[in-house]
Amino acid sequence: MQTFLIKDSTLVPMVRSHEFFKADLLIVNGRIHSIGHQLKAPKEAIEIDATDCLTLPGFIQGHIHLVQSLLRHQADDLELLDWLKERTWPYEACLDSEDVHAAAQLGIAELLLGGTTTICDYGTTHSHEAVFKAVADMGIRYIGGKTMMNQGELVPKRLLESTENSLRETYDLGKKWHRHKDLISYAVTPRFAVSCSSDLMKQAAQIARENNWYLQTHSNENKSEIELVRKMTGLSNIDFLESVGFCGEDTILAHCVHVTESELSSLKKNKTRICHCPGSNLKLASGIADIPRFLDEGLRVLLGADGAPCNNRLSVFHEMTLTATLHKVKFGPQAMSAWKTLSLVTREGAEALRLDSEIGTLEVGKKADIVIMKRNSVSLYPSGDPASQIVYGAHPQDVNHVFIDGIPQVMDGELLSNSLHEILKEAERSWNHVEMRMKKR
Amino acid sequence: MQTFLIKDSTLVPMVRSHEFFKADLLIVNGRIHSIGHQLKAPKEAIEIDATDCLTLPGFIQGHIHLVQSLLRHQADDLELLDWLKERTWPYEACLDSEDVHAAAQLGIAELLLGGTTTICDYGTTHSHEAVFKAVADMGIRYIGGKTMMNQGELVPKRLLESTENSLRETYDLGKKWHRHKDLISYAVTPRFAVSCSSDLMKQAAQIARENNWYLQTHSNENKSEIELVRKMTGLSNIDFLESVGFCGEDTILAHCVHVTESELSSLKKNKTRICHCPGSNLKLASGIADIPRFLDEGLRVLLGADGAPCNNRLSVFHEMTLTATLHKVKFGPQAMSAWKTLSLVTREGAEALRLDSEIGTLEVGKKADIVIMKRNSVSLYPSGDPASQIVYGAHPQDVNHVFIDGIPQVMDGELLSNSLHEILKEAERSWNHVEMRMKKR
Repeated sequence: MQTFLIKDSTLVPMVRSHEFFKADLLIVNGRIHSIGHQLKAPKEAIEIDATDCLTLPGFIQGHIHLVQSLLRHQADDLELLDWLKERTWPYEACLDSEDVHAAAQLGIAELLLGGTTTICDYGTTHSHEAVFKAVADMGIRYIGGKTMMNQGELVPKRLLESTENSLRETYDLGKKWHRHKDLISYAVTPRFAVSCSSDLMKQAAQIARENNWYLQTHSNENKSEIELVRKMTGLSNIDFLESVGFCGEDTILAHCVHVTESELSSLKKNKTRICHCPGSNLKLASGIADIPRFLDEGLRVLLGADGAPCNNRLSVFHEMTLTATLHKVKFGPQAMSAWKTLSLVTREGAEALRLDSEIGTLEVGKKADIVIMKRNSVSLYPSGDPASQIVYGAHPQDVNHVFIDGIPQVMDGELLSNSLHEILKEAERSWNHVEMRMKKR
Repeated sequence: MQTFLIKDSTLVPMVRSHEFFKADLLIVNGRIHSIGHQLKAPKEAIEIDATDCLTLPGFIQGHIHLVQSLLRHQADDLELLDWLKERTWPYEACLDSEDVHAAAQLGIAELLLGGTTTICDYGTTHSHEAVFKAVADMGIRYIGGKTMMNQGELVPKRLLESTENSLRETYDLGKKWHRHKDLISYAVTPRFAVSCSSDLMKQAAQIARENNWYLQTHSNENKSEIELVRKMTGLSNIDFLESVGFCGEDTILAHCVHVTESELSSLKKNKTRICHCPGSNLKLASGIADIPRFLDEGLRVLLGADGAPCNNRLSVFHEMTLTATLHKVKFGPQAMSAWKTLSLVTREGAEALRLDSEIGTLEVGKKADIVIMKRNSVSLYPSGDPASQIVYGAHPQDVNHVFIDGIPQVMDGELLSNSLHEILKEAERSWNHVEMRMKKR
């Protein structure tokens, strides 16, 4: 493995709030070897002049749908259930394995170029090998799996699985890909209570626990979805999830926009993780989750851009800006500071995923998941507090270099593993095929 | 004047919703001379290959504080009145003429590079010549003036004017700069009811009407401000403004976050213009204006980023994304479509400013205020509906060329009138001086 010396940047280690200082950082064997002034590097080290740059832990997004990337700009102005039935499920049903690969590449490219180094991702019900291939190829840190669906009105046949097949495929994928290159962790991923039977949910939770994999699902996103779950199960979302063994430190629930007091108590008691997706929650007209309240109660919260057709960016900066500003209206101007928000996509995000011994901060010994940001954009001037710059002023284009596990994946704003031009061309070609198939249905 | 032929782009004229087509566009003498396929250009025409680009009317922002640009990232997590008293007024009081110039240059650079070609701007109470100089130099279309303030608790002395001086300076600036290079229109600009006496407001309105200048002020932004105005005047904001002659087609009110039914009726009756600033309204914890309701009632609405210390970007894309997504929660997923939102910063924005005979659409005979956007960013792929791309997916960095009055001000993402490097250096130097002065106070 190559050795890198990041010279003279402003380090924002995210160990403590408000801490930043000028220093060098040395990467050896994929880990942060040392941090200090005028570090002496081995001869073979590649020096990166990062004067006037900010160096941060790589950003973590807790809820992404890579596979939906081709549907960007094709599913606007709909609420969740219509968005699923009219656009997103028909789209997923028309994907072949090549399309899934093209979509995953497009999504990963956008995430890497924007400084996101770790994601929790949902596939579709089929062809998930293609996502893992793109992940392994492009080197993003990945927690995720195929979605599971065995019931549901208007779910296209192609997406409906038997309970048995859903569980077997999940098991096989997990066994094959979990811990691949030390970058991939499997997450057992039933889509949501509406499209999964209790039996499927129970067995899904069981597989996850037996194998020490993550568990993730959507919950409490939209009022109609909540009503539907109550009609189908007689329970609230969270009560239903709890009844099928779906809560705890290993479980990440996306959204939690509308949560009752009793559900909140249950989430708290079980230490279930929440992923806040403000961009998607606004665009799908879902609502605004009470994130400052959740944090006050001690819940662990991640941020995520969700999918391209419901955002339509996969920008951690957009989600940070929204998180830091949106909640001020209800909870006051100090509800979510820039530092607090930045922590959710770094240190606290890593803690939520129980990966904080390895990533989430810049500390000696940790894995070198690192983002280096230029500080010379006009919207970052005059230079001020780094967290304020990143959360309120920055754009994905301010990201200059990205390391994951000590491997450079973006240098000078260019993707290294693949040609972006080819990825975009493939995405366009795949979308044209998928669109034709969607029209024929 | 140079002649330009924009070749082979996708034109989004914004005359009708959902209309876009491949065509050439010829600029002669600062105006759109012709639009069509394979246009023949005069020999001297400079050809711009815009294949794979979108060509749009330049974006219009209805509420900006150029002069505050140096305070970016220095005034976070405060509500309006604290933000003014603790940070923004002390800052404005410490500016000298050079600082005002540096701040205006920084703000204009950000706006031009992000495709904004017309702004309504508020200066501080002094040194406004320096803003006009930067505007004339950098060629942005400008409606604005010095702010006026003759009262107010905790307003620094430097910013307080006598009624007479405030009016005289306003008059002199207007007489000198209104219609300068056909780019500048003067707007009489009392800051807000809290810091202006009834007498000042009345005479301000009178000057504006006598000279056919615009009138602008802040109104109904924040609950404490609204209470304060009621305490001071015995009236609601809008009633007070109406009582001093401050409503009508020539008047632009920034914010209108909290408006009663009776105030709404008055705004409607008087055809007063509203500028919606969602980024600033969230960050200052002000609230969310009922924009879809205002539009349904037939009110004219503009969008604006407000100032760098309360946003912290001056990005029309951020304001568009917020406008199109934020209101879906209360008013449903179709409340603000991408096309409707894009119209507010182009055609409808121009109509609100009564400039629609000259700008706001791409039509033969109109002034060539034009933005050409690259379409090859990863967050714009696969290519879809242009409005969806621009409103939900684009960033300022996607802007490639900008023309104002037929003059190129940005080419290939580079500012032409001034060196961006110099502008940033001057901004940094000025901020350092201002910060020292602020600490000494």
